[in-house]
Amino acid sequence: MGKLETHMENQSIGLVISAKGRTGVLHQLTGVIAHHEGDITSVEILGNWPAEARTYFEVVVPGPAEALVEDLRGLAIVSSVEMVKTLQTIYGKRIIIMGGGAQVGQVAIGAVSEADRHNIRGEHISVDTIPLVGEQKLADAVRAVARLPRAKALVLAGALMGGEIETAVREVRAQGLIVISLNMAGSVPDAADLVVTDPVQAGVMAVMAVAETAKFTLQRLHRRVF
Amino acid sequence: MGKLETHMENQSIGLVISAKGRTGVLHQLTGVIAHHEGDITSVEILGNWPAEARTYFEVVVPGPAEALVEDLRGLAIVSSVEMVKTLQTIYGKRIIIMGGGAQVGQVAIGAVSEADRHNIRGEHISVDTIPLVGEQKLADAVRAVARLPRAKALVLAGALMGGEIETAVREVRAQGLIVISLNMAGSVPDAADLVVTDPVQAGVMAVMAVAETAKFTLQRLHRRVF
Repeated sequence: MGKLETHMENQSIGLVISAKGRTGVLHQLTGVIAHHEGDITSVEILGNWPAEARTYFEVVVPGPAEALVEDLRGLAIVSSVEMVKTLQTIYGKRIIIMGGGAQVGQVAIGAVSEADRHNIRGEHISVDTIPLVGEQKLADAVRAVARLPRAKALVLAGALMGGEIETAVREVRAQGLIVISLNMAGSVPDAADLVVTDPVQAGVMAVMAVAETAKFTLQRLHRRVF
Repeated sequence: MGKLETHMENQSIGLVISAKGRTGVLHQLTGVIAHHEGDITSVEILGNWPAEARTYFEVVVPGPAEALVEDLRGLAIVSSVEMVKTLQTIYGKRIIIMGGGAQVGQVAIGAVSEADRHNIRGEHISVDTIPLVGEQKLADAVRAVARLPRAKALVLAGALMGGEIETAVREVRAQGLIVISLNMAGSVPDAADLVVTDPVQAGVMAVMAVAETAKFTLQRLHRRVF
């Protein structure tokens, strides 16, 4: 891990590996990858049954990928290794929208339309939503965004959010996540990077804030409430 | 891996582990988990820098979680181990919507509103979208849904989809994914489980098809075009 900066010739590859599912499959697979000095940037457990475990890896390898694939195939537990396009390449950055169904749907309209315009120009932005109710559930979900792969910005869409949700917002912002709040009751707007009244506009701004193809920079805004 | 069915007392736990980032971190961590006969159901690489690698695991453990946590803390490379709620608990099943921005946004409106109604009754359904254009890009994205964790249904929302996308649809359906297509030009509707003309209705039906709280069963439908 952590060798990205020293090997400019590194290539990022996606691997889907089928193996006999017993305890320790991941341990054996990662052992071979470590031996090739592969830097694992993503892992997904695709299937996990006794007869077959399917695992997806994104690995940055300093040398030729073929040697790594060959050695993985050489493991007794492995039945197949397939090279595929990486999820980063396909789904790219993620905007997460959460809160009430009515507002989340409207924010999604704005975010999806704007992501469409950027993706056509070569960006890779996806828009993910979860309708949720309740302070503790929302606070848990906000904190969990920090554990979602490729999540770059969070939009909180509701009529009232505060308390534990505000605390969670401050925590994930400290971890580098951009947080946009609708103009709503409660203390969450005070804790956000940006407060937007129109939900469609909030979705559009969230996408612009993470798109390389946009000139919108949160740090340059003179006001934070729209 | 694959021990779920023999240990009914198993518990699923979420762990966020910080460690010194060098090649082989994952290999060492999974070694300890394997030693405790932990069944790893999900992995996310949260951060991957030379100074610190943060990794999230969902593990089903046959015994007490404390012993596993203790041994992980005992590794020289590990600086902290934190128990957290699992992503499965928070984000649950995923509906994926992809295609043109205009149609994707409308399907999202329906899916988000319907997911809201089920989540209020105890379901956990999230709605994820990616606006994309182009046969090869869409075919790649359809195939990649099979590598996304917790994805249960796919809605294809566009005006024209066929060729390689149709092939990809048949492949992911064979892997157990539900595929709903808008009524559109091209051969994708022929390959889908269900064809729906109204995009809002398509989103609603996608959520109903995966919700435990709904009585909607695709297999029981007498017609597949709405």
